[in-house]
Amino acid sequence: MGLKELRYAAKVELDKDPATLPYLHNRWHPDIPTCGTIKNNEVVKIECVDWTGGQIGNNDSADDVKNVDLTKVHYLTGPFEIETAEPGDVLVVEIQDVQPLQDQPWGFTGVFAKENGGGFLDEIYPEPAKAIWDFEGIFCSSRHIPGVRFAGLIHPGILGCAPSPEVLSIWNKREAELITSFSHLDRVVALAPQPINVHAGTADDALKAKIGQEGARTIPGRPEHGGNCDIKNLSRGSKVYLPVHVPGAKFSVGDLHFSQGDGEISFCGAIEMAGCITIKFSVMKNGMAELGMKSPIYIPGPVEPQFGPGRYIYFEGFSVDEHGKQHYLDATVAYRQTSLRCIEYLRRYGYSDYQIYLLLSCAPIQGHIGGIVDIPNACTTMGLPVDIFEFDIMPGACYISSVKFTSNGSPNVPGLSGTAAKNIALAP
Amino acid sequence: MGLKELRYAAKVELDKDPATLPYLHNRWHPDIPTCGTIKNNEVVKIECVDWTGGQIGNNDSADDVKNVDLTKVHYLTGPFEIETAEPGDVLVVEIQDVQPLQDQPWGFTGVFAKENGGGFLDEIYPEPAKAIWDFEGIFCSSRHIPGVRFAGLIHPGILGCAPSPEVLSIWNKREAELITSFSHLDRVVALAPQPINVHAGTADDALKAKIGQEGARTIPGRPEHGGNCDIKNLSRGSKVYLPVHVPGAKFSVGDLHFSQGDGEISFCGAIEMAGCITIKFSVMKNGMAELGMKSPIYIPGPVEPQFGPGRYIYFEGFSVDEHGKQHYLDATVAYRQTSLRCIEYLRRYGYSDYQIYLLLSCAPIQGHIGGIVDIPNACTTMGLPVDIFEFDIMPGACYISSVKFTSNGSPNVPGLSGTAAKNIALAP
Amino acid sequence: MGLKELRYAAKVELDKDPATLPYLHNRWHPDIPTCGTIKNNEVVKIECVDWTGGQIGNNDSADDVKNVDLTKVHYLTGPFEIETAEPGDVLVVEIQDVQPLQDQPWGFTGVFAKENGGGFLDEIYPEPAKAIWDFEGIFCSSRHIPGVRFAGLIHPGILGCAPSPEVLSIWNKREAELITSFSHLDRVVALAPQPINVHAGTADDALKAKIGQEGARTIPGRPEHGGNCDIKNLSRGSKVYLPVHVPGAKFSVGDLHFSQGDGEISFCGAIEMAGCITIKFSVMKNGMAELGMKSPIYIPGPVEPQFGPGRYIYFEGFSVDEHGKQHYLDATVAYRQTSLRCIEYLRRYGYSDYQIYLLLSCAPIQGHIGGIVDIPNACTTMGLPVDIFEFDIMPGACYISSVKFTSNGSPNVPGLSGTAAKNIALAP
Amino acid sequence: MGLKELRYAAKVELDKDPATLPYLHNRWHPDIPTCGTIKNNEVVKIECVDWTGGQIGNNDSADDVKNVDLTKVHYLTGPFEIETAEPGDVLVVEIQDVQPLQDQPWGFTGVFAKENGGGFLDEIYPEPAKAIWDFEGIFCSSRHIPGVRFAGLIHPGILGCAPSPEVLSIWNKREAELITSFSHLDRVVALAPQPINVHAGTADDALKAKIGQEGARTIPGRPEHGGNCDIKNLSRGSKVYLPVHVPGAKFSVGDLHFSQGDGEISFCGAIEMAGCITIKFSVMKNGMAELGMKSPIYIPGPVEPQFGPGRYIYFEGFSVDEHGKQHYLDATVAYRQTSLRCIEYLRRYGYSDYQIYLLLSCAPIQGHIGGIVDIPNACTTMGLPVDIFEFDIMPGACYISSVKFTSNGSPNVPGLSGTAAKNIALAP
Repeated sequence: MGLKELRYAAKVELDKDPATLPYLHNRWHPDIPTCGTIKNNEVVKIECVDWTGGQIGNNDSADDVKNVDLTKVHYLTGPFEIETAEPGDVLVVEIQDVQPLQDQPWGFTGVFAKENGGGFLDEIYPEPAKAIWDFEGIFCSSRHIPGVRFAGLIHPGILGCAPSPEVLSIWNKREAELITSFSHLDRVVALAPQPINVHAGTADDALKAKIGQEGARTIPGRPEHGGNCDIKNLSRGSKVYLPVHVPGAKFSVGDLHFSQGDGEISFCGAIEMAGCITIKFSVMKNGMAELGMKSPIYIPGPVEPQFGPGRYIYFEGFSVDEHGKQHYLDATVAYRQTSLRCIEYLRRYGYSDYQIYLLLSCAPIQGHIGGIVDIPNACTTMGLPVDIFEFDIMPGACYISSVKFTSNGSPNVPGLSGTAAKNIALAP
Repeated sequence: MGLKELRYAAKVELDKDPATLPYLHNRWHPDIPTCGTIKNNEVVKIECVDWTGGQIGNNDSADDVKNVDLTKVHYLTGPFEIETAEPGDVLVVEIQDVQPLQDQPWGFTGVFAKENGGGFLDEIYPEPAKAIWDFEGIFCSSRHIPGVRFAGLIHPGILGCAPSPEVLSIWNKREAELITSFSHLDRVVALAPQPINVHAGTADDALKAKIGQEGARTIPGRPEHGGNCDIKNLSRGSKVYLPVHVPGAKFSVGDLHFSQGDGEISFCGAIEMAGCITIKFSVMKNGMAELGMKSPIYIPGPVEPQFGPGRYIYFEGFSVDEHGKQHYLDATVAYRQTSLRCIEYLRRYGYSDYQIYLLLSCAPIQGHIGGIVDIPNACTTMGLPVDIFEFDIMPGACYISSVKFTSNGSPNVPGLSGTAAKNIALAP
Repeated sequence: MGLKELRYAAKVELDKDPATLPYLHNRWHPDIPTCGTIKNNEVVKIECVDWTGGQIGNNDSADDVKNVDLTKVHYLTGPFEIETAEPGDVLVVEIQDVQPLQDQPWGFTGVFAKENGGGFLDEIYPEPAKAIWDFEGIFCSSRHIPGVRFAGLIHPGILGCAPSPEVLSIWNKREAELITSFSHLDRVVALAPQPINVHAGTADDALKAKIGQEGARTIPGRPEHGGNCDIKNLSRGSKVYLPVHVPGAKFSVGDLHFSQGDGEISFCGAIEMAGCITIKFSVMKNGMAELGMKSPIYIPGPVEPQFGPGRYIYFEGFSVDEHGKQHYLDATVAYRQTSLRCIEYLRRYGYSDYQIYLLLSCAPIQGHIGGIVDIPNACTTMGLPVDIFEFDIMPGACYISSVKFTSNGSPNVPGLSGTAAKNIALAP
Repeated sequence: MGLKELRYAAKVELDKDPATLPYLHNRWHPDIPTCGTIKNNEVVKIECVDWTGGQIGNNDSADDVKNVDLTKVHYLTGPFEIETAEPGDVLVVEIQDVQPLQDQPWGFTGVFAKENGGGFLDEIYPEPAKAIWDFEGIFCSSRHIPGVRFAGLIHPGILGCAPSPEVLSIWNKREAELITSFSHLDRVVALAPQPINVHAGTADDALKAKIGQEGARTIPGRPEHGGNCDIKNLSRGSKVYLPVHVPGAKFSVGDLHFSQGDGEISFCGAIEMAGCITIKFSVMKNGMAELGMKSPIYIPGPVEPQFGPGRYIYFEGFSVDEHGKQHYLDATVAYRQTSLRCIEYLRRYGYSDYQIYLLLSCAPIQGHIGGIVDIPNACTTMGLPVDIFEFDIMPGACYISSVKFTSNGSPNVPGLSGTAAKNIALAP
């Protein structure tokens, strides 16, 4: 009766070396043993840990970033067999939630040294660097970049299904040709298979050696399966359509990001974290042909966050009138009181009540029914967009710089010249 | 071949008294003669003028508002016969555009005197008042309310189809009962039919007298047809579904607003203006039964404006690298340059380049392909959300108060204590 | 070094009767003993449980809603002493996160019986009813209301500081007068203090009796402190400014909602749940005078969710060209591939490649840099707004009804008449 | 008293050859004579015409696109002297409005032939093509791409200040080097100065010849001044910060677009149109140094349009209760009626009234005060997000495919199996 707690398809152990954990792997290969099975249409939680599971510490030195061993990354959780999935199908992955791990409320952003990984601007900025970010609910801030604080657009950097042997072979050939064509230059242009530090879950030594020889690195995203796409908007509520190349799909996920900018420009540029992703898996039979799919597509979530819209002050009003009289669930009285609260607030800037009354009538304020059932008080709200003012009316700001008090003690807005109250066209 | 200029179903003459114009009327009544015919699925432009057509002037006195004659308002444009519309149908009205008249780029907001119209807060604010607003493109500002400027959410205050005799009779009975029940109070609670200053388009004297006796005033919206709803979001791109009560629908529209807040609280509280509305009319046969419609519904437009989102600074970059070398349509080079422009901008606040590099990687910046075809330069943009900073980084703001220069000449952000550049975890 | 796990100021025990838990209370009164202390500027987690802590079960009968005992609700967590807060200050409450409890991923919405609580429409709908909602990440769905699924706008229904004795006395007088004035009617218009089922944390019997006699019920919000406001947008990231009336503020919170509509019309109409709220508390000294505050105000969060924006299909492209050649981090090649993916997708609707090429150029598509650092593949995305089409192009939809295959096997969109491909103006 | 009609700094004559109009030019050069003067802080209207002023016709053949003469484009309006602007300043350009010309409500999108201009995908799509778009208010549609209709995000493709001789010299050198380096390939990679079809406003023949030899083509945007950036979001309400390189700035603008996708991929891919742009010009003294500016930056407008958000149905309700009784400005009664309208609408899908009552309480509906002053009727609205349903509830859709009527005549939603009404948990 009713939903049980969601099943964990994998839980990570933060106190162990990721290279020893049977549900992780760090190469793409069709033969990596599955670490679990997920039903078609099942919702599960999957925990992920990567950089912060040992290589990178919560400290004030960038030495760990400087000396990072890129043959180890990324540790992905999986592969999972998705029941009924066959080559040619599409695996529909609905990202229902992503959260940092409770026990590790921090992440980091790094700049790799030019000679060990580099990044988008490494010709100009060759030194390694690191910033640690603390998570407080939806927000993050860093002691290494003071004065900045923002909400994360949390998302997985890597997710995809395993390549088939044919697909893997295309990858290896294609990238080898690129490496060859750039061999005269002093620049790493692609990461070839590398049998060092290979982790392939529960693979035995022979299989592991094979995977080391053939397995694709996790660094680039690739058109045939997606993988390391680092798309910042692939966040909570999104749906990704992934091509299936092997029986059971062999889905893996990792490289969770608390936030990232378009391009993830410093390479290790997202806020890398350990976390938990909640996914619903559905198989679309024969989906690759039906969707004519050569590369994954995705649909952003139904509640896409909008950065920067909190530019309103909301005033609350209740059905108690200005004489203190209680009215019964009267939204009209409540909305009148809400208007008065807003008028009182704006007086401080030198406006007369009539100016504000006019302004509230015509500016695009938001008037909402808050609560209409909690007897006896109706609660309404009025949202005042702060950007219609040429100075800052936010609660914090008014004490700092916007308002200067005149010699006679009345508040005064720069540019208003204390005459705002006289400007209104009142009948004589 | 191709669209001709859109047809004007009505053009107003600003130099004439609205009461003499044959395509205007100021009562709701089924017998008002139609002033034109519109085809099913036709798009037309309709001009409207009301308050600013004589009663209210662009001046600094509120005398005109004080002495306003409410028996004259609202002058609506129409009624128009919509071909094929029959009672029981629904008239689908798509608002394709609304604009102020070219020749009258201003409007006003008024507070009526308590004894002549009043408003939502008239017990507290009984005096008349007026503010004139100037329109500059999508923006408006007022010499009577300095320090404020905003974009209009432009919309019609009134639109609807004529009532049938039965519907009109219900209105008159219902509102008369309310007036009777409040007759012991000193408050106008509804406006009964009033045979003074009636305008009924081309109606002859006998018909005009009848309409004066029976015609519903335009002040309230009414559930059976919508009318004076003053819904601020019924803006450009919206679709309204209106019940049809008489043959040909007899559609009228007016009371255009450059902007309004939810509730239009001062009564004449929107920015009233003369303007032109572009509408597509479609008839949904038998729509009232099919939609189970007792009151109008509407669908907001596909490009709903969001107040307050301009909280980004966008940097532009081109495929000319930092050595001045021209690259051919190279979006990667362009995006690298865009990143550098942003780094240079943020240096002024005391951040080191590495701090900014890290920040641009992980904060939710927007990285867009601008132009990818104008040979030889690719243009990319990077949008930096300004609200992730705890101080104001907008171009104007940095000169006023946020940045204080330290004694050694380097810029310094309050709260950063000049140590920002030292905070980054750099490898030794 | 770095953030430790956030402190829990209170954790609930789901297996115990809320009436026995020392950190809960169900009345507003200045004398309720504090259950903990929180520092100025501290961030803490606070767990809450109310209805689902015993009264309402996860089952298919509405009997529990019918017989609900309203003298018991709401159990609030608190009161907490906020260090340094004094009467006249404002407590700034930043809601950093709200989540359902891990162990109880469900909630309910109820309609109370008219004779026991009622609701906004109880004259029309007097029967009790109940729907259980299951939570899957950010989404919820109900076996009792099939066909519906949405993301929650998660928020607390009640938060506020304790009233002073003076404030409490005003409340009791004001509401008593209302009850008296309605006493001739068969309707409960307000809930007077009620000494039954009083819970006052660790209060001894004498104090508990006093609180029962005087304590304000938690049902309505009240202008002097906020309280039960049920404002659906007071969600993650919002900041509320609350008046402080007693030393230490004595802050309480509860009535967590997974989602609610404006008005919460069925009274118990939100999706009531047990959960955990993360709050940062800051004291603004003398804030009530400085802000001229008579009722709380709030600032919505910096990432306000927008319902309904997921109306894009995003295509992914990589720097592997159409001949299979690998390019090095070439965003231009990647964006070209992304364009081709979109063209291939839209072909199925009967459009020619040139029609789509033209359309992608001029329609407001979103072209983003996805990942620009994962060597050797640049990843770009192109977002196609689906609502520019007059038929449904979403991946799921195209198989159901929009596309009908013609007799010769070519796809055909209703209304396009199979001639789309012929409509393009190609040079001869 | 009050704003006069905005001044036109330039009006185009559609019946004349652009090459003869003294206020147009088609090269960037410091010596092109100014065609007018604009004051610092002045707002003016500027009309622009380019392709549709002769080269491209509103017809069904792409021959004109195939044979387009690219030495003629783009005709820019200007240059204008901005008073007080000096080299080193920044010209702040606020785009207050952009509109198509009244007399030419159409535009076009073109694909150039590979051998004459080409485009982003010309290796795959070498043929020329053209689509004509008709403008209806904010919307556009094309007879050449049926089934598509959208709102334009209207903006200028080109705007900038004239280069100084030094800047021009850098451009010419840089691009010549690129042309040289690609000279072995059969591809035009940049457009060198070209003395054919040069138009330089009122320049005499000698000056015109010089400009033809030296003048930069208008095709690419360039980092030093912006120019042809084709940034689709530089729309109404945006502010651009432009470097000033010559005394008086010599500002020009043109290449207006009704809409464009990121990248403008088909080269002539925006909807090119003749139109009118309203701009406010302000000079920021010494702005280049103060902003550390190497390339322009811009701030998007305060009412950024959001494509796809019209996913609500709004119901209207008035203060006339279900017994037909008139209440006086009672928002509570109105909101109750609004709720009932919504319940009635949703019944058709097989839901019981109680299911809907519960749903409206907990889903994120928007409850707004519409009009609160039009006596005697309060008008409230309730916005129902349509995407919370798993089937299409839009007014048009319900007649087509979503609802199938059962044999007994009751409506029935696929997937609900007619049992929705039985699913509610009602008390026995």
